[in-house]
Amino acid sequence: MRQAGRSLPEYRASRAGTEMLDACLTPELAAEITLQPVRRHDVDAGIFFSDIVVPLKLAGVDVRIEPGVGPVFGSPVRTAAEVDRLLAEHPAESLDGTALSPITEAVALTVAELGGTPLIGFAGAPFTLAAYLVEGRPSRDHLAARTLMHGDPETWARLTGWAADVAGRFLRAQILAGASAVQLFDSWAGSLSLENYLRSVGPASHRTLRHVADLGVPRVHFGTGTGELLAAMRDVGADVVGVDDRLPLDEAVRRLGGDVPVQGNIDPALLAAPWPVLEAHVREVVARGAAAPGHVVNLGHGVPPTTDPDVLTRVVALVHALD
Amino acid sequence: MRQAGRSLPEYRASRAGTEMLDACLTPELAAEITLQPVRRHDVDAGIFFSDIVVPLKLAGVDVRIEPGVGPVFGSPVRTAAEVDRLLAEHPAESLDGTALSPITEAVALTVAELGGTPLIGFAGAPFTLAAYLVEGRPSRDHLAARTLMHGDPETWARLTGWAADVAGRFLRAQILAGASAVQLFDSWAGSLSLENYLRSVGPASHRTLRHVADLGVPRVHFGTGTGELLAAMRDVGADVVGVDDRLPLDEAVRRLGGDVPVQGNIDPALLAAPWPVLEAHVREVVARGAAAPGHVVNLGHGVPPTTDPDVLTRVVALVHALD
Repeated sequence: MRQAGRSLPEYRASRAGTEMLDACLTPELAAEITLQPVRRHDVDAGIFFSDIVVPLKLAGVDVRIEPGVGPVFGSPVRTAAEVDRLLAEHPAESLDGTALSPITEAVALTVAELGGTPLIGFAGAPFTLAAYLVEGRPSRDHLAARTLMHGDPETWARLTGWAADVAGRFLRAQILAGASAVQLFDSWAGSLSLENYLRSVGPASHRTLRHVADLGVPRVHFGTGTGELLAAMRDVGADVVGVDDRLPLDEAVRRLGGDVPVQGNIDPALLAAPWPVLEAHVREVVARGAAAPGHVVNLGHGVPPTTDPDVLTRVVALVHALD
Repeated sequence: MRQAGRSLPEYRASRAGTEMLDACLTPELAAEITLQPVRRHDVDAGIFFSDIVVPLKLAGVDVRIEPGVGPVFGSPVRTAAEVDRLLAEHPAESLDGTALSPITEAVALTVAELGGTPLIGFAGAPFTLAAYLVEGRPSRDHLAARTLMHGDPETWARLTGWAADVAGRFLRAQILAGASAVQLFDSWAGSLSLENYLRSVGPASHRTLRHVADLGVPRVHFGTGTGELLAAMRDVGADVVGVDDRLPLDEAVRRLGGDVPVQGNIDPALLAAPWPVLEAHVREVVARGAAAPGHVVNLGHGVPPTTDPDVLTRVVALVHALD
């Protein structure tokens, strides 16, 4: 469960006084935060505590996480000249073993503590990274990014190609340090038409996933509002496709051709509903997921920060009982 | 084009020093702002300048528009008791001729100035109104609203039924004052699965549109991210269905059964792209729209505030030339 930590008192205690990106880049702390929800909820895997912009930060990009806002960049990257400068000053190759050492140390510490429980690595997909870079901060419609995509496709391809390599190196380092699977998050892909996704985004996501194709670990690919994009997101090289809470899981399986494992799709809004309502929903999700050759039971989106942690523990126990 | 005004210098001059809701409730000012884009761009219809929360304000609800944030309510409405108090203190019937007079005056002034050009009335749909009321402010996922929807369906039905009547009375007043068509905006409907839309949202939207069913004017229904919901949004009583920029218009027409007029779906992100790219896109949208029995050429979403107004004028001229 992504962002499971933020609902936990032990997470808030660990994070107190530490900025988000500093927490991500302090190996002992990142490992501890990764382990907290695994210890508490008895889930079957941990997901590496990090942030979508961490690999950008490691490449030297001026970015910080503003509480209540999200990632804010020193200077947005909107023109061909700005993209060229970004690529020249922060080449993807600068993400070498030294730059990535806070990540590999954190992963190694986590894997050692987890014992037999697998760790899922994590990265943001090139479109989402590029959307942040072009907007300079979170936005609802990613208009500036989409303007660049259409108005200057060559510059867009250079930017997303660079982001693809940055994300790919970030994922590869996590696997080499011990992660048993990876998840590529394209948070904003649902803002695109299928045609635009296929032309302007899919090739970069494919390039990211190729960075880890030889390592033989499952690659999960996830976004929200991606009901129209599921097959396209599989085709970029995913072994498992995440489904948010807007599409019934059996319909998602059908759109994926029936032979692709899925992840999801418990509605996070139901975590605050009375237990019988939530229980019925979880049972239905699990039942519909049986249509797939495999189902990683999970939320359809991140854990809301106000979630009662005991409810998450109860959901995990219910899913285990249904096994 | 919704929110066309905010890209105009004359709009910014008219609004200077006046809060958003005060501008909506000052008839001369609301009329002037409605007329500005019609004068400048030579569009075929005006859309009434208002805000989704205006009918709530007229019903006495404590709400204001915070610049850069959106609607902020004095107290969110989340429990059965809070919903009951809202309905008791602000009954939909309080939206009578007196309460609605700033709207009817503004519409009458606008229609008189417009001459033969039709005016489209405007209201937010019950789900979007209820989502704002439950959250107390804009939110990305409307989690609290969706929790109430699932956790206490009876309270949810009371709240959305009330919102349906508030929106219905708001639309009806605009038609009786001279509007030639209405548009019902369900800004957040795209966050719902089809099943949830049909069960928990559609009935209230139907109730809103029934308020004006006897008046014989076209009813347009629009949301974003609603590719899965188009037919359901027609079935609540819409004559025309709006399509955002995520679905090709001919595919939307197909999903609607081929016999429903559509509105949209120029991508607002392309307004800032070089003219040849934008021109090709507009031509393609118009060509694909020919599959429908009628196509109200429009943007797929609101006008970005940074848009060059001359580009909008040029788009209108292009569409007229394609007629």
